[in-house]
Amino acid sequence: MMETGTLAGTGKFVILPVDQGFEHGPARSFAKNAPAYDPLYHYQLAIDAGCNAFAAPLGFLEAGARQYAGSIPTILKLNNSDALLACEDPKPEVTASVQDALRLGCSAVGFTIYPGSAFRDDMYMELREISEEAKDVGLAVVVWSYPRGSGISKDGETAIDVIAYAAQIAAQLGAHIIKVKPPTDHVEQAAATKVYQEQAIPIATLADRISHVVQSAFNGRRIVIFSGGAAKGQEELMEEIRSIHQGGGFGSIIGRNSFQRPKEQGMKLLKDVMGIYAG
Amino acid sequence: MMETGTLAGTGKFVILPVDQGFEHGPARSFAKNAPAYDPLYHYQLAIDAGCNAFAAPLGFLEAGARQYAGSIPTILKLNNSDALLACEDPKPEVTASVQDALRLGCSAVGFTIYPGSAFRDDMYMELREISEEAKDVGLAVVVWSYPRGSGISKDGETAIDVIAYAAQIAAQLGAHIIKVKPPTDHVEQAAATKVYQEQAIPIATLADRISHVVQSAFNGRRIVIFSGGAAKGQEELMEEIRSIHQGGGFGSIIGRNSFQRPKEQGMKLLKDVMGIYAG
Amino acid sequence: MMETGTLAGTGKFVILPVDQGFEHGPARSFAKNAPAYDPLYHYQLAIDAGCNAFAAPLGFLEAGARQYAGSIPTILKLNNSDALLACEDPKPEVTASVQDALRLGCSAVGFTIYPGSAFRDDMYMELREISEEAKDVGLAVVVWSYPRGSGISKDGETAIDVIAYAAQIAAQLGAHIIKVKPPTDHVEQAAATKVYQEQAIPIATLADRISHVVQSAFNGRRIVIFSGGAAKGQEELMEEIRSIHQGGGFGSIIGRNSFQRPKEQGMKLLKDVMGIYAG
Amino acid sequence: MMETGTLAGTGKFVILPVDQGFEHGPARSFAKNAPAYDPLYHYQLAIDAGCNAFAAPLGFLEAGARQYAGSIPTILKLNNSDALLACEDPKPEVTASVQDALRLGCSAVGFTIYPGSAFRDDMYMELREISEEAKDVGLAVVVWSYPRGSGISKDGETAIDVIAYAAQIAAQLGAHIIKVKPPTDHVEQAAATKVYQEQAIPIATLADRISHVVQSAFNGRRIVIFSGGAAKGQEELMEEIRSIHQGGGFGSIIGRNSFQRPKEQGMKLLKDVMGIYAG
Amino acid sequence: MMETGTLAGTGKFVILPVDQGFEHGPARSFAKNAPAYDPLYHYQLAIDAGCNAFAAPLGFLEAGARQYAGSIPTILKLNNSDALLACEDPKPEVTASVQDALRLGCSAVGFTIYPGSAFRDDMYMELREISEEAKDVGLAVVVWSYPRGSGISKDGETAIDVIAYAAQIAAQLGAHIIKVKPPTDHVEQAAATKVYQEQAIPIATLADRISHVVQSAFNGRRIVIFSGGAAKGQEELMEEIRSIHQGGGFGSIIGRNSFQRPKEQGMKLLKDVMGIYAG
Repeated sequence: MMETGTLAGTGKFVILPVDQGFEHGPARSFAKNAPAYDPLYHYQLAIDAGCNAFAAPLGFLEAGARQYAGSIPTILKLNNSDALLACEDPKPEVTASVQDALRLGCSAVGFTIYPGSAFRDDMYMELREISEEAKDVGLAVVVWSYPRGSGISKDGETAIDVIAYAAQIAAQLGAHIIKVKPPTDHVEQAAATKVYQEQAIPIATLADRISHVVQSAFNGRRIVIFSGGAAKGQEELMEEIRSIHQGGGFGSIIGRNSFQRPKEQGMKLLKDVMGIYAG
Repeated sequence: MMETGTLAGTGKFVILPVDQGFEHGPARSFAKNAPAYDPLYHYQLAIDAGCNAFAAPLGFLEAGARQYAGSIPTILKLNNSDALLACEDPKPEVTASVQDALRLGCSAVGFTIYPGSAFRDDMYMELREISEEAKDVGLAVVVWSYPRGSGISKDGETAIDVIAYAAQIAAQLGAHIIKVKPPTDHVEQAAATKVYQEQAIPIATLADRISHVVQSAFNGRRIVIFSGGAAKGQEELMEEIRSIHQGGGFGSIIGRNSFQRPKEQGMKLLKDVMGIYAG
Repeated sequence: MMETGTLAGTGKFVILPVDQGFEHGPARSFAKNAPAYDPLYHYQLAIDAGCNAFAAPLGFLEAGARQYAGSIPTILKLNNSDALLACEDPKPEVTASVQDALRLGCSAVGFTIYPGSAFRDDMYMELREISEEAKDVGLAVVVWSYPRGSGISKDGETAIDVIAYAAQIAAQLGAHIIKVKPPTDHVEQAAATKVYQEQAIPIATLADRISHVVQSAFNGRRIVIFSGGAAKGQEELMEEIRSIHQGGGFGSIIGRNSFQRPKEQGMKLLKDVMGIYAG
Repeated sequence: MMETGTLAGTGKFVILPVDQGFEHGPARSFAKNAPAYDPLYHYQLAIDAGCNAFAAPLGFLEAGARQYAGSIPTILKLNNSDALLACEDPKPEVTASVQDALRLGCSAVGFTIYPGSAFRDDMYMELREISEEAKDVGLAVVVWSYPRGSGISKDGETAIDVIAYAAQIAAQLGAHIIKVKPPTDHVEQAAATKVYQEQAIPIATLADRISHVVQSAFNGRRIVIFSGGAAKGQEELMEEIRSIHQGGGFGSIIGRNSFQRPKEQGMKLLKDVMGIYAG
Repeated sequence: MMETGTLAGTGKFVILPVDQGFEHGPARSFAKNAPAYDPLYHYQLAIDAGCNAFAAPLGFLEAGARQYAGSIPTILKLNNSDALLACEDPKPEVTASVQDALRLGCSAVGFTIYPGSAFRDDMYMELREISEEAKDVGLAVVVWSYPRGSGISKDGETAIDVIAYAAQIAAQLGAHIIKVKPPTDHVEQAAATKVYQEQAIPIATLADRISHVVQSAFNGRRIVIFSGGAAKGQEELMEEIRSIHQGGGFGSIIGRNSFQRPKEQGMKLLKDVMGIYAG
């Protein structure tokens, strides 16, 4: 993945993830840009835009693995949540295996953990097994680390102390690449607040916070990338990317902001993002 | 299954499923047409009517597998629910294995998931394992995707957004063939309602909705077939089939509407349905 | 088992089951006829009376397997419940394995399911695995199908619709031989009541009901046998057996009615029963 | 174990069990006789007193297995409960495996079940697997059968009907040697009371009751031994042993009554007990 | 580990453990001494200070295993708890395997149990499997035994009877090295209080209590080491170490007290501690 696409050799990453069909439902994900109902659309978008990799659940990769073999590195998302039943403490469903990833010629497996959920135990154990098996067969392990659940307030899900902690947990669990959300300057945990104040850890700007998160993932020894979040204005997104780049982030995962636009616009956006990281 | 029966080579499917003995009890299923207590009756009905395949639980297939070997493709239903204990959140029991399907010479395995049930996790994980094993040994995977449970209202079980979502989930889980119910024009989820309105997704006619469901299963890259539902008037059923065909549906699964009639009538009905799909 | 004892070659069965020591405790089971505390007593009783087979839990069969090897077919009961803790929803404990049955030279394994229990899932899954393994190694599968649990009223446990349903479930789960209780003319489920009335299914006499249960087990394609129940008067029992025979039942399992009498009386009773089935 | 120690060849057993360190804590177990903190003390005590075997958890046997190899048969206790958290329904923790027993050169494995506990299912299933594996590799299976839990009153734990039932369950589960507590003349279960009265089962003296328990374990075809219980007066203990011997019991397990005394006194007590069984 | 570092050959241990990043979060653990965000910092600190070993979770060891291969023995912590969700009854997550430890060239595996937690069952069983596998492949087993949970009061977590019991449990579970907290003179359990008074067990000084804990771990036949606890004054810590040494403790695990100081100060502190044990 480090040797593919526009950013090959820079140590930076822009990845196209498309799991929203499973996570939010097909119409909410694809109706804005109907060609995106087709899994092959996303393969082609990732290739044409020069992404480092394309990440998706089992069904999407099965649909294009043969046709696009060798065209772009793929990441098989091994667990997913659907939106048909809300749960305070989320527990994604394991929907594919490391063996599936091998069969589909993937370069990596992806796995979501929800630190703070009452079911984190199950997820960490599943990740442990998956990770051991993936390393045995030479696949990279990409961890989506999203704090959420009865242990954490809504604001706490993106609090700087919680996001930094989530990055640390993913790193300690053995992830090669860690995906978190861009953090806010909120500090969630009382015991942490004391430390952030006493040690005067800089968290005022997004670049500061990105820098702290990267430090929290073994002082930069692990690759941390950031999600683009819900679809938003292009300039707002670019501003965010510039801060991530400035703070030493290793890249972005850009989903809805790219595939919910007409293809030319989506490609341009991805290329603009790459331009920032290449800069 | 695509090369068998009246619809061989058309890409369309009419399948005879008989799991009602387990799901509803023997008298409720077979008393209206007493020869149907016998599993061999159904093998013969499916063959004589020219169906693409016959689907049933373990016991039924064990009863006829030797005698009807090579006569018709069979689908072993690997999980089933009985009606002796009602549960708001359904969880079918796994009642057979991929190895059983091999032993019985089946062409595919069938598995029911209930998106929206609190136990969907267990079902998705069971399906994941079954699906991986089935693909390894060359069996097709047919998924009955029935939204149901504490996450969904009664009307929501056939709502267009929910049925489309159920088709997407089955496709992402790796199904080759997906069976859903014909959807109504009700939209269940608030977040979806907004999108259906903003994007003006056509859902007024059944044909429109069928088309949307097929689109939601990877833009037609997965085979979606529809159930006939409870026994009903012949003309009403035919009208429904015509809409499914018009909307681009790949076929029908017709159970009670065929085997709860005297054999000649049941055969005629199945042939009439095939006539529409062949048209 | 079909070629052993007095009924060899008739297609009928009389089996001696002795699991009451585990299910009800030793004194309640054996004090009335103290030699019955000894497992070898039962081997000898089954042989001397000319039974088709002897069924018991692990310990009883381990006690006599060597000495009586080749003398009579045995059925190892693989799960059992004890009476030291009452539960509304029963879940028997798995107490032996298919490998134990092989080691002990058994002809079949026995397994109890309680349709209607909240734990039916666990039982059906255990049976599925046991059944697959047993068939692989050539052992017959005998299923005790006893509806019970929070889904069913006390009267419902022997209701005709429920017993017929229990026989169907066991057959669909792949049983070779199914044991149920003789049904009453009570109909338990509302949805079934409607069908029994509309289709005028005959259930007035015990012979009618036996006939309906045999029909419900794949129209006679599966062997259905009936329990003798609690110890009762000899004439009452014989009347019941005559009805089972008349209705097409395949035989009886007679436990307490035989071993809780002095040996000569127990043998005579078993022989009288066989006389009816041979008639 | 039948060919070791003072009672070699008599068919009788006196076994030294030391699991109190885990079950009650170290000070409560060993402070009265401080050398007993050392696991080797117990090996030596069992050897010097002429016991048939020494039973203990993993750690104790690991501490002396090499040094005392071949000196005395050992029984590895495979599950244990600690007293740091009280539970109405006990479930001991599995703390060692059959493979550990092989590695440590043991002659048998020991396993505790609590009939009447809501978790009996788990214990019986664990025992089933352990027992199958132990028999495969030629180790004897010793079952501590202690009725306890929400199904049984405090007095019921040693009631004659319950102890006899506990012995039957252990025997049916395939135990070679069964350890129970000496029973009282209390009868716990209503259904059993009726039978004990009608059949006039003698339970007035301890010898009567021992005899009934031995009968309840396959009429003497299984070895039943009895615990010494909490530390008590020597004469009281000897009286109890004489009754066990008189009732046909196969021996005793004597823990706290031996190792909580100075070594010479403990040895003398064990020898006195053996004297009774040899008499 | 006994032949490494300053204390090589003395039978004493000083180990550097760094799992606080996972247990408390990165800022709370490392902000006071920012170079400690880097896993390699800790490898180097342990080596430069002359520790016997370095203990950490999977991610930290993966980060340095190749570079520091052969430089210092490592202990892979196989389970960990994070602080994002508080639970009265703790259950750490298994985050790595014995196979991981082999792959990373470790000398031992570490595992935390919480006696007194409602989930102790799960932990003991996990430890049983891990321990068996570790011994098979020649790795030492280090058990962190921390009484905690609904069975124990806050003061009880460090009560002398409870700590002694926790050491006994770890020893019986087969640990080679046991880590507990220095105990207070509080006695928690009523049944234990009686014994401590009657037998006049000396617990007045910390040295007395250390001695009692070592006795409780098989009378000194198992290695018991003690944690340094939260960061505290240097003199206070040294006083504690002297008592541990005087009472016969085998060493200390010193984490926050060393790595939350600037490196030179941390090294000096560790060396001072070693000086006491070497004395």
